[in-house]
Amino acid sequence: MTHTLNETHDAALTSWVESANDPQSDFPIQNLPFAVFRRAGSGAPFRGGVAIGDQVVDLAALDAVLAGRPDHAVARQAAALGARDSLNALMAAGPAAWSALRLALSRLLRADAPARPDLLVAQADAEFAVPATIGDYTDFYTSIHHATAVGKLFRPDNPLLPNYKWVPIGYHGRSSTIGVSGQEFRRPLGQTRGATDAEPVFGASKRMDFELEVGIFVGPGNAPGEPIAAADAEAHVFGLCLLNDWSARDLQAWEYQPLGPFLSKNFATTISPWIVTTEALAPYRTGWRRDAADPQPLPYLDYPALRGGGGFDIELEVQLQTAAMRQAGQAPATLATSNFRHSYWTVAQLLAHHTVNGCALRPGDLLGSGTQSGPEAAQAGSLLELSAGGKQPLTLPNGEQRVFLEDGDRVVLRGRAARPGLPRIGFGAASGTLLAADKR
Amino acid sequence: MTHTLNETHDAALTSWVESANDPQSDFPIQNLPFAVFRRAGSGAPFRGGVAIGDQVVDLAALDAVLAGRPDHAVARQAAALGARDSLNALMAAGPAAWSALRLALSRLLRADAPARPDLLVAQADAEFAVPATIGDYTDFYTSIHHATAVGKLFRPDNPLLPNYKWVPIGYHGRSSTIGVSGQEFRRPLGQTRGATDAEPVFGASKRMDFELEVGIFVGPGNAPGEPIAAADAEAHVFGLCLLNDWSARDLQAWEYQPLGPFLSKNFATTISPWIVTTEALAPYRTGWRRDAADPQPLPYLDYPALRGGGGFDIELEVQLQTAAMRQAGQAPATLATSNFRHSYWTVAQLLAHHTVNGCALRPGDLLGSGTQSGPEAAQAGSLLELSAGGKQPLTLPNGEQRVFLEDGDRVVLRGRAARPGLPRIGFGAASGTLLAADKR
Repeated sequence: MTHTLNETHDAALTSWVESANDPQSDFPIQNLPFAVFRRAGSGAPFRGGVAIGDQVVDLAALDAVLAGRPDHAVARQAAALGARDSLNALMAAGPAAWSALRLALSRLLRADAPARPDLLVAQADAEFAVPATIGDYTDFYTSIHHATAVGKLFRPDNPLLPNYKWVPIGYHGRSSTIGVSGQEFRRPLGQTRGATDAEPVFGASKRMDFELEVGIFVGPGNAPGEPIAAADAEAHVFGLCLLNDWSARDLQAWEYQPLGPFLSKNFATTISPWIVTTEALAPYRTGWRRDAADPQPLPYLDYPALRGGGGFDIELEVQLQTAAMRQAGQAPATLATSNFRHSYWTVAQLLAHHTVNGCALRPGDLLGSGTQSGPEAAQAGSLLELSAGGKQPLTLPNGEQRVFLEDGDRVVLRGRAARPGLPRIGFGAASGTLLAADKR
Repeated sequence: MTHTLNETHDAALTSWVESANDPQSDFPIQNLPFAVFRRAGSGAPFRGGVAIGDQVVDLAALDAVLAGRPDHAVARQAAALGARDSLNALMAAGPAAWSALRLALSRLLRADAPARPDLLVAQADAEFAVPATIGDYTDFYTSIHHATAVGKLFRPDNPLLPNYKWVPIGYHGRSSTIGVSGQEFRRPLGQTRGATDAEPVFGASKRMDFELEVGIFVGPGNAPGEPIAAADAEAHVFGLCLLNDWSARDLQAWEYQPLGPFLSKNFATTISPWIVTTEALAPYRTGWRRDAADPQPLPYLDYPALRGGGGFDIELEVQLQTAAMRQAGQAPATLATSNFRHSYWTVAQLLAHHTVNGCALRPGDLLGSGTQSGPEAAQAGSLLELSAGGKQPLTLPNGEQRVFLEDGDRVVLRGRAARPGLPRIGFGAASGTLLAADKR
């Protein structure tokens, strides 16, 4: 379904919103990602919007435009759902509604359509919120390169556990502290114990890290006891975003046995405001990565499109801007680039696995991909890996060094899909800033 | 605050609702627990209610009663919040509102007050729902007896991990599959791998279990980055309920490394409809359990009331009724009894730990205590423990045997607080039934 190309994917399309025709824009007319926004400082309710160039199409303004168009009746209904203060209702409406709205937007915004600047708000004048009420948030662990690298640090004798190539490993995260790009949070306090210490100590984390992840927003979902088959799973994916799973490695090492990470992760999670739909990503699909020696997936994790186009070819980038860089007016520096194509498990496999036991997914639920480290050392999606467990400092362009994050550090995630002959479609940014610990 | 006794705790009080004066009732006038309910089959919106004997006081009907009473203005506001279709707004209102509503209800229901049967719905005519919109659900692991017993089965050489006596271990659960008493769910499907098997197999779990837990509903909660101090924590606890953390032990053993339990737990969690407030439980407080050799808690986990009355003396019971017992009209058989007083960590410590890193708790969030096994073998809160890891079958009164749950088995949790000279106040039941696996 979502792999089918249609007129909205036509690489030749341009828009009457001139900024969308800049090849460096994340938001050409072939993208059309969703967010919730309002004019900054207005205090108005948030409402759904769609990015085009450096503007946002206000979904609440679309009703009048689509009212006289019987050919866009489904799109009009979808726009009304999307105009609410969260995208949950639109997510629940399913692929036919999403696709109809995308088609209507594409036709309205094309260069040969009448310009309607009254539908637009400049992104520079907007503020954004978490785009859905997230009922449950699950974080997976789909990069075998990350799992192996981190496993070596936590369990040198046993880096990749025997279940890894069979089970899409995941755990439940915390939805109450998920914030949108621009999130600021204090360095967390907690218990840590050094390898040679007899007792733990209490204080601010000294090993603060980011994790470069892709977020997956669930669409219609399933009732308890009614699993989603892998072959049907992408009809339950509204779209993808960027996700930074901030981590306190020293808290994690002390707390994580036997029930997994808890306070080391749940103080903050930052996502991009923009959700790029799976339909927009259809031209950028790729095969499932595996080695010949890897086991065949169990039947519930196998499906026709898996090998041909189960994956997503999305370039991912993590940047760091220290407080000193900000003061000097220096742009964020790139620490690593990777690609979602390196994921060991596909998005459809994650949904099939999550629900195979009868667990219910609800519209607006969020899945994290896990840190998307690639096979090369420079493709690592966390400082834990980039600094070899805190042993090899990174030198930044201004001469500063980092093993873990310092107060004032801002981490910016970016993502884009691009192929020869196709426009580049981007995810915008997920930016978050670590503040000093509370002085209690 | 919640430890203070007042006129609502007077053991001599009786009610004009005669059934509340039965010493075997869970719901005397000293209890007054909250639920959301509606007349069964009415399709009406759910609304808040308070148990008295075998009746429910309809909070939506209280407004007219309290309207003419300036002395009950705060209670009237609280009743209006409680009359909504979930208790989140009442939970957010805080202890002063809860206490005022409790006092008004106590005075309205006393034997010397005018009988108002028009405010009541018989519990037998009611149906119940999950009492709050649960934003996030966290399950802890507070019984050192359970942690030790289960640790021996999963890690014979390393049963109680070094962090246990320092860190209130917990992990995030799934809110989408939490159901109220009466919940039915299918035996989950998933991956398992036997100790001697080269590869996992897919199928229905063969080691289905219950876990006897106490649930804790959060009141006002905290903003991100603003921890709740242990000394203040009970002002953020609306009340306690019963909670069955259903578990698939064979799925758990294969999936839980390194990120903790996931599909082995998230298919179903059953809670009681009734939430007993901490104010009602004030006469049944008890000291914090610890051995002389146990480490002192770190300062953020210590607080004045900890040793004197940090714990709750609540008797817990788990019962099993097989399909054969139901067909023969036989009552559920008791498998084990325990007590929340055995918990290694107090409720206040759980909230202080959960938020010390800046994690936000929201009104209506749910915490599970973890399986409340006591120090004796007969006080084990799971079949995994009662059957010694599936090796020693239990024989039921009708001659049936169990190592783990079989299709059609119904598990009923019960709880009550009782002390000499004080009325017994109970939690009702959390009942759930395991159905056969889907035949796919």
